[in-house]
Amino acid sequence: PKVVTLPGDGIGPEVTAAAVEVLREVAPDLKFEEQAIGGAAYEQYGDPFPQVTRDALKGADAVLLGTVGGPQNSPWNSLPRHLRPESGLLALRKALGCYANLRPVRVQPGLEHLSPLKPELARGVDILIVRELLGGIYFDGDRQIEGDTAYNTMRYTTPEVERVAKVAFWAAEQRRGRVTSVDKANVLEVSELWRRDVQALRDREYRNVHLNHEYVDSVAMLIVANPSRYDVIVTENLFGDILSDLAAVIPGSLGLMPSASLGDGPGLFEPIHGSAPDIAGQGIANPAAAIMSAAMLLRHGLDRPVAANQVERAVALALRAHPTRDLGGKADTRTFTHAVLDAVA
Amino acid sequence: PKVVTLPGDGIGPEVTAAAVEVLREVAPDLKFEEQAIGGAAYEQYGDPFPQVTRDALKGADAVLLGTVGGPQNSPWNSLPRHLRPESGLLALRKALGCYANLRPVRVQPGLEHLSPLKPELARGVDILIVRELLGGIYFDGDRQIEGDTAYNTMRYTTPEVERVAKVAFWAAEQRRGRVTSVDKANVLEVSELWRRDVQALRDREYRNVHLNHEYVDSVAMLIVANPSRYDVIVTENLFGDILSDLAAVIPGSLGLMPSASLGDGPGLFEPIHGSAPDIAGQGIANPAAAIMSAAMLLRHGLDRPVAANQVERAVALALRAHPTRDLGGKADTRTFTHAVLDAVA
Ligand SMILES: CC(C)[C@H](C(=O)O)[C@@H](O)C(=O)O
Ligand SMILES: CC(C)[C@H](C(=O)O)[C@@H](O)C(=O)O
Repeated sequence: PKVVTLPGDGIGPEVTAAAVEVLREVAPDLKFEEQAIGGAAYEQYGDPFPQVTRDALKGADAVLLGTVGGPQNSPWNSLPRHLRPESGLLALRKALGCYANLRPVRVQPGLEHLSPLKPELARGVDILIVRELLGGIYFDGDRQIEGDTAYNTMRYTTPEVERVAKVAFWAAEQRRGRVTSVDKANVLEVSELWRRDVQALRDREYRNVHLNHEYVDSVAMLIVANPSRYDVIVTENLFGDILSDLAAVIPGSLGLMPSASLGDGPGLFEPIHGSAPDIAGQGIANPAAAIMSAAMLLRHGLDRPVAANQVERAVALALRAHPTRDLGGKADTRTFTHAVLDAVA
Repeated sequence: PKVVTLPGDGIGPEVTAAAVEVLREVAPDLKFEEQAIGGAAYEQYGDPFPQVTRDALKGADAVLLGTVGGPQNSPWNSLPRHLRPESGLLALRKALGCYANLRPVRVQPGLEHLSPLKPELARGVDILIVRELLGGIYFDGDRQIEGDTAYNTMRYTTPEVERVAKVAFWAAEQRRGRVTSVDKANVLEVSELWRRDVQALRDREYRNVHLNHEYVDSVAMLIVANPSRYDVIVTENLFGDILSDLAAVIPGSLGLMPSASLGDGPGLFEPIHGSAPDIAGQGIANPAAAIMSAAMLLRHGLDRPVAANQVERAVALALRAHPTRDLGGKADTRTFTHAVLDAVA
């Protein structure tokens, strides 16, 4: 099988290299092809998602992404919107047809002290956020800025709602069997459709899953005040962007958080942290999230759950024995990666 | 001066009565007129914002609101959208022209232990969130649900952005002089306008205020991971709904959180907690947020800062001496209110 790697910007290349090392160890039959994305692709090709990258995806079985974007004051941020690094990322998601973004939020036993929450609230948290990734206000073509008015449109259709809700119900069946669908149906028509369609799908095809509906403002509160109440959360693109980043702080280090984006073609796997330009190139970035994303690639992208478990266990061990600086330890990227490789072997 | 009180649903009447008692004590010249809103108004008049209430607002100098809405399974929630309790609230905001919702988030010294955050993160938090309250996706008329598609439109104009940003800059000048404007300008055109106009206003009229711009997903993280970094936050309606509720969990009890909504006419003052139908009518609700809202009414609605400070100090004392049940204490509504009245006298 072929994995396309897109290292991207900032610490992306370092953490992606670490993840590839681990993949080579547990799945020696994989072939890798590296291509450019984001700011790096703009520098090389004048396009944050160039044709050569697009072409490489055709034969891919899975895509491993690093990170995309420059520092706040980067000249990339003043380019026309379609040339900015983030546009490359959005175009990549679209090209792959990845409509379901899976964001597991798990507090590792023994690492509760890293959480900004009180340890008794952080302990045992295990949430899966399923974010709709190709619809809503992100992609709708009905958008404009002109003179002193601007607007964007948050639109959903029943098929768009159903395909991502299916992923959430399917995931809940392998977990604790509960889905919370998040919307703002007390104010928005688009949320009324969302709620109606998610409920109808549950009543038709997933009667063994327990479904409830909550408002986005209330979830933003409760995910902090009482995170253990959630199993699977499913929501639309913009709410999912906010809530999945919010939930990601609970384990205490973004350096630990992987993600998978699934659709009809090859899946896209990436750490959720940013490109951290301030520490790029120093060999000190924490590659745990990239390696955990590689584990998700093994599980969801290549259907190799045994290898995925092996990698996840190795990361958990390495985190305890060789914590990186963001976790209050001293391990650099190389030391941590070797600890994972040792534990895997 | 005349204060219109709108007790509303659930515990609204109890906590509003407590706040009125305190107002009578510190401002004996106030006249009060009570009217219906929300579910209670629907029951009485078939309309969650009836004409009689609308008329009463004409002569008002300020409006004190309780809480609006029924339990999750309330028949009110299956009414046509325009008859639901929440629609009464939205129509009230619109009728009063209250475009700036002020939500102070302060952790009281000595009450850090109530926070879901670690005490060292909660200590000293003092944020003011300024939420745009009359625009964006909440009110835009370009909205529809039909068959298997639905949409809403997030639209802003320069005058709408400027009038609320002015409130934020003005507030920052009385505080620590820093404003963070929150948007999603890397994806949304409407955010590009928001960012541009807030920056231009700062550069034109508020050069002594320090302004920065952050993305909504990042703020959702940082407000939990490092809340002390914020002074004033200004943002559009939907982001403000989510972030202000999120920030409200930091002090640990919604029972402590007041709000003020300001515009061109009389201001609207209300606790941010819900109607808590499960404990309504039992005399055990914590009236602190309603009483703190009355303090905001004195300060922002009637320009009586001395009386406002007096009430706020009294509440802080009462919270220590007679905590209510939601704070782990035993005081009921009456005991707590009397403690405030004693401290005020
Ligand atoms: C960079 C940005 C466009 C992106 C998004 O909002 O989807 C990011 O925040 C994410 O969540 O992956
Ligand atoms: C009840 C609802 C319409 C309202 C809103 O979203 O504005 C509430 O959540 C609030 O924040 O006051």
